[in-house]
Amino acid sequence: MASLSLSRHNQLFSRPIFHRPKPNFFAPTKIRMSLTENAPSIAVVGVTGAVGQEFLSFLSDRDFPYRSIKMLASKRSAGRRITFEDKDYVVEELTPDSFAGVDIAFFSAGSSISKEFAPLAVDRGTVVVDNSSAFRMDEKVPLVIPEVNPEAMQHIKLGTGKGALIANPNCTTIICLMAVTPLHRRAKVLCMDVTTYQAASGAGAAAMEELELQTREVLEGKSPTCKIFKQQYAFNLFSHNVSILSNGYNEEEMKMVKEIMKIWNDKDVKVASTCIRVPIMRAHSMNVKLQFERPLDEDTARDILKNAPGVVVIDDREANHFPTPLEVSNKDYVAVGRIRRDLTQDGNHGLYIYVCGDQIRKGAALNAIQIAELLL
Amino acid sequence: MASLSLSRHNQLFSRPIFHRPKPNFFAPTKIRMSLTENAPSIAVVGVTGAVGQEFLSFLSDRDFPYRSIKMLASKRSAGRRITFEDKDYVVEELTPDSFAGVDIAFFSAGSSISKEFAPLAVDRGTVVVDNSSAFRMDEKVPLVIPEVNPEAMQHIKLGTGKGALIANPNCTTIICLMAVTPLHRRAKVLCMDVTTYQAASGAGAAAMEELELQTREVLEGKSPTCKIFKQQYAFNLFSHNVSILSNGYNEEEMKMVKEIMKIWNDKDVKVASTCIRVPIMRAHSMNVKLQFERPLDEDTARDILKNAPGVVVIDDREANHFPTPLEVSNKDYVAVGRIRRDLTQDGNHGLYIYVCGDQIRKGAALNAIQIAELLL
Repeated sequence: MASLSLSRHNQLFSRPIFHRPKPNFFAPTKIRMSLTENAPSIAVVGVTGAVGQEFLSFLSDRDFPYRSIKMLASKRSAGRRITFEDKDYVVEELTPDSFAGVDIAFFSAGSSISKEFAPLAVDRGTVVVDNSSAFRMDEKVPLVIPEVNPEAMQHIKLGTGKGALIANPNCTTIICLMAVTPLHRRAKVLCMDVTTYQAASGAGAAAMEELELQTREVLEGKSPTCKIFKQQYAFNLFSHNVSILSNGYNEEEMKMVKEIMKIWNDKDVKVASTCIRVPIMRAHSMNVKLQFERPLDEDTARDILKNAPGVVVIDDREANHFPTPLEVSNKDYVAVGRIRRDLTQDGNHGLYIYVCGDQIRKGAALNAIQIAELLL
Repeated sequence: MASLSLSRHNQLFSRPIFHRPKPNFFAPTKIRMSLTENAPSIAVVGVTGAVGQEFLSFLSDRDFPYRSIKMLASKRSAGRRITFEDKDYVVEELTPDSFAGVDIAFFSAGSSISKEFAPLAVDRGTVVVDNSSAFRMDEKVPLVIPEVNPEAMQHIKLGTGKGALIANPNCTTIICLMAVTPLHRRAKVLCMDVTTYQAASGAGAAAMEELELQTREVLEGKSPTCKIFKQQYAFNLFSHNVSILSNGYNEEEMKMVKEIMKIWNDKDVKVASTCIRVPIMRAHSMNVKLQFERPLDEDTARDILKNAPGVVVIDDREANHFPTPLEVSNKDYVAVGRIRRDLTQDGNHGLYIYVCGDQIRKGAALNAIQIAELLL
């Protein structure tokens, strides 16, 4: 099978329409200037990957101002050419010297690359926005969703010559907290149970290609090719493909538990998560059970969510229209529906909500770009 | 696209191997006699449907004894020929007179057919095992999972000339309770939250065909054909396609809540359910959060489940091997894994388990045949 570009995936599995359902508070008009002398110099690390490509797309779509941009990747990808905003770039090999003069670096090349190169970039005065899990639980590193806890990074400034690290949370954490935080602010979440339906994109572009290849093979009666995943993914689903920890939870589930406590700065909130990989291309879905300290009925919750930044409510019971991963693919917002009282909890202290969000956009690249916008 | 037979689906999406992982307590050797003069006369209503075909397959595989068998369906299917155990049958149109001399009738032709014809069959002295939802919540009708509550139907006997109705629970209820009941017996479940991953087969053979057709279409860049479902199902998932009730739960979810209370004869157990349709062919999966009255640690729970009839534990943390819908397709057992402490509950009063089961077999046809075996 020929290698699939992400744009071809967009055509196949959703409409590539850029959609802003409500004013986006993190793209004020003052920053609409793109290539500008006074703007920061930028580097994108892992620029040839799925999230790296999306970084470029957002920098352009959101008119993120920059003076210069470096395209960085592994030795294997070095030398490839990228056209960005009508200018040709050559992908450079990532080295310790790549960050001289770079103000903001977006990292999305995996944890080991971040662990090795992000501290070197910080030493050279770069503010690193890291999409890997390498530094998320480091107490000195803010873990930020701009709509949720922008205050965590308010001490980090550009132009001081002082480097810093800011971590982008895991995709499931971002999508979940976009919907849950507005309710938490009103009624305080005591307990949260999350069950996920996670897309192929979370395992990278190659995983999306494998899902497509396997699906073709199964339909032709052939044995499915299993390279990225050890078992058939087409017409199947399985517990998330990361290691299981001693408590029986997998790493993806425990990321969610720990990241939520850190982002909310709440050591008492009880969280459990079950992460399942489903044969979907690029958007995650999740069912969330919530227990609140203060009463919160479903109508009030719906109103709160309708007014939450970056959130769209799709909750039409009569038409049986609720969020789907296909509908939110290539969208910037997180969609919420199935807002209803939890039948197992008395009174108005429990709700269920169902959330979908694009794993590559708000779940990764968009959130990182929004973090950088807070620096401007 | 040519119409797909179920056996072709078996080839495409799983291996058609009949597998009994442990002794099945409901197929004792004494009933291995099939076509026998002293055995009951049988009718299969909806014999040309997905579950109807599986009824026949189980009657044969389990050597269910019968004196005669009537193949019944709608007028549209009448006249079709079916070969069963080397004998040719002609499908007859279902009429009020179809049940004269019939001892046991298996119904799987939808609720409206059951509502109209099952009482007529009972009047003629037939014991009806009904796979529809028509009578499940009728107080006078036992709702039975043989491994869970066989006592509910102990007053119903064959050969008395007295007809009766026995209802087969919804597929999600059966699969869930097969795994949860053994734990409930030990530690008493106070509260249960179920989040499902439901296959196409629950909506019938035509839904499975639509999923396959749509998948081919999407891969070819065409618009998907939406006849059974109103939206794209290929590479997508959505909230279950039944009506939403006034409390915001859909009919599928409330079936589960009510059926669990009835089968356990427990008005106090608290149940909430979220039912989602995923692009999988024929096995359902579900994540289940359990709160117990008495303490139950995960090792004890695992041991209980290993010894439960009709249940197989697949819980290999080191190999990241847990149940998948593909692995349980065409299997008679329900598979359980991800058995672990619920992090949101203190002490040993909370567990999570993850369950997969074939929707057509144990979720429908097999359970109905097992009910009939209890009558022998």
